[in-house]
Amino acid sequence: MNDPLPQGSVIGILGGGQLGRMLSVAAGRLGYRTHVYDPAPAPPAGDLAHTVTTAGWDDAPALAEFAAGCAVVSYEFENVPEAALDAVEAEAPVHPSRRALAVSQDRLVEKAFLRDLGLATADFAAVDDAPDLAEAIAEVGLPAILKTRRLGYDGKGQARIDRPEDAEAALAAMQGAPAILERRVDFSHEVSVIAARGLTGETVAYDPGENVHRDGILRTTTVPARLSAAQRTDAALLAGRILERLRYVGVLGVELFVTPEGLLVNEFAPRVHNSGHWTQAGCAVDQFEQHIRAIAGWPLGDGSRHSDVVMENLIGDDVDRVPELARQPDAALHLYGKGEARPGRKMGHVNRVTGPARRP
Amino acid sequence: MNDPLPQGSVIGILGGGQLGRMLSVAAGRLGYRTHVYDPAPAPPAGDLAHTVTTAGWDDAPALAEFAAGCAVVSYEFENVPEAALDAVEAEAPVHPSRRALAVSQDRLVEKAFLRDLGLATADFAAVDDAPDLAEAIAEVGLPAILKTRRLGYDGKGQARIDRPEDAEAALAAMQGAPAILERRVDFSHEVSVIAARGLTGETVAYDPGENVHRDGILRTTTVPARLSAAQRTDAALLAGRILERLRYVGVLGVELFVTPEGLLVNEFAPRVHNSGHWTQAGCAVDQFEQHIRAIAGWPLGDGSRHSDVVMENLIGDDVDRVPELARQPDAALHLYGKGEARPGRKMGHVNRVTGPARRP
Repeated sequence: MNDPLPQGSVIGILGGGQLGRMLSVAAGRLGYRTHVYDPAPAPPAGDLAHTVTTAGWDDAPALAEFAAGCAVVSYEFENVPEAALDAVEAEAPVHPSRRALAVSQDRLVEKAFLRDLGLATADFAAVDDAPDLAEAIAEVGLPAILKTRRLGYDGKGQARIDRPEDAEAALAAMQGAPAILERRVDFSHEVSVIAARGLTGETVAYDPGENVHRDGILRTTTVPARLSAAQRTDAALLAGRILERLRYVGVLGVELFVTPEGLLVNEFAPRVHNSGHWTQAGCAVDQFEQHIRAIAGWPLGDGSRHSDVVMENLIGDDVDRVPELARQPDAALHLYGKGEARPGRKMGHVNRVTGPARRP
Repeated sequence: MNDPLPQGSVIGILGGGQLGRMLSVAAGRLGYRTHVYDPAPAPPAGDLAHTVTTAGWDDAPALAEFAAGCAVVSYEFENVPEAALDAVEAEAPVHPSRRALAVSQDRLVEKAFLRDLGLATADFAAVDDAPDLAEAIAEVGLPAILKTRRLGYDGKGQARIDRPEDAEAALAAMQGAPAILERRVDFSHEVSVIAARGLTGETVAYDPGENVHRDGILRTTTVPARLSAAQRTDAALLAGRILERLRYVGVLGVELFVTPEGLLVNEFAPRVHNSGHWTQAGCAVDQFEQHIRAIAGWPLGDGSRHSDVVMENLIGDDVDRVPELARQPDAALHLYGKGEARPGRKMGHVNRVTGPARRP
């Protein structure tokens, strides 16, 4: 077994958004320093990091210099370019692994990976052009959703195909990018499971949270989710299978559809996940600390929850509600220090403890 | 009423220890940046601050430059030199006020202030030399404790006088510093109340915690404390009187002795307080955020608690227990990133949620 990183070690984080910011705070709580790398000046994570490097993803010397000072490097978003990883990996270990990143960067590869693992997903087919799409519709059926294989998030790069005549416009919306057609799943609600695997192979999962989206963006997560005991077990087991197969180190977020036939995996993210922010208020070890524990060689928190929580995102103009939220006794506010409240931009979140943990 | 400081404003913190570190994290949560000023290089708070200035308390130009970039300045310890405050106050508002600092810097002034407020304290008398001490012993009685008037903390600068023949050695231990003799109080236990007053005059108190000291250093705080309903009310009211009289802005920690005759005030600290660390695990708004809210013109959290908590300090070699603590599911660890574990040095703390909040 590896010893944990010594106190005072530097943990590198690729990407300086709110996830990097909260990872930096968690790293500090365990006695580590963080070095944040981001192409944009004054990234949110920089306010709470020991060191910030502002340089591009194509700046190999800057990436190498950054990584050379880090005991381990992680990332807060899954679209880190390959070449940037090459430069970093030459100087420091990167967790979660390249394979986790590669699988999750491409929806088609991800779905195939999940199917190979024996996990249920929506039916899907690859779509590169109009003939592909016609064939995919015949195979997968309608209604369906056409999605770009890469770089989609928060509902971007997606088009619904309810009837055959929607196909042409949907394909045009892909702007020539390789795509995947997914059958629309008839689900009652969506849950996600936040799980982690440590350097020693230990795996742990938090109890699933129930997610509500609006306009393709997560609005709230409520814990506990409406699930049967068997579904809860399923959720933890399937997350464990993904972690094991990828020999993953760190926190993983898995989105699941709850259907009459059981849980379907929608997608996973190789990082801390918005739907895990509730752990800040409900657990001794939150998802951010869990991730730092995993990549720094600590024993993992056991995922137990002392309180039930509702997490609400503050998106765009929602930030105008802060004065009102500040007066609500049960609202634990987390603002991300972002300057401009653009529509759809995640500006912060609120956790509310709703009571001691119920055991559903 | 003042508007809150705009998002992205810089909050200055004099002193870069663990209290400054946790204030910096709380400021970040509310969308602010911090600038930490400390004479020592690489202070613990620097790992989690936007900016750090390393310069002495006598470096007026550095202090002025620091303050000029801050919307408001606070401090994490009560022994900020007068001249340093002069330099800062010329450039930015300082909270809590100079008067709070002046009163709490001198045990004699503090006790006189409390007595003038009508609050119960141990009997006390000023001691500058041997004749004073003899007179003070006659007036106050024995057993008693001789303490330097200034710069004492964690039991330093104190000497017990149980019998008259202890007097000479006790006086010698003061090394010529002006002192105060305090009658030793026969108390059953010690509690502290963490209270706050906002820019608009609003005052709030958390439920008192029960403190256990060893070797003059706080070891644990348990919430709720063993107190009657009347004592709880007393604690909040007396903290409120101190806050009002000082027209205080920020968080205040008040240590109280519980005696058969009621609560006696031991001392207060014009800052966030070690005995308030439990609020991180038990409240939506912890003491660090409460302090930032107060000095930044926000409404205060109402002090309500969702969970009961035991806080344990990790002092000196206690930090060797971290590997074991890391395996305890209920232990929320906070390490301060300090290099060397000297005896008596506060290296971190652990919060444990012990259950939903009991209403005693």
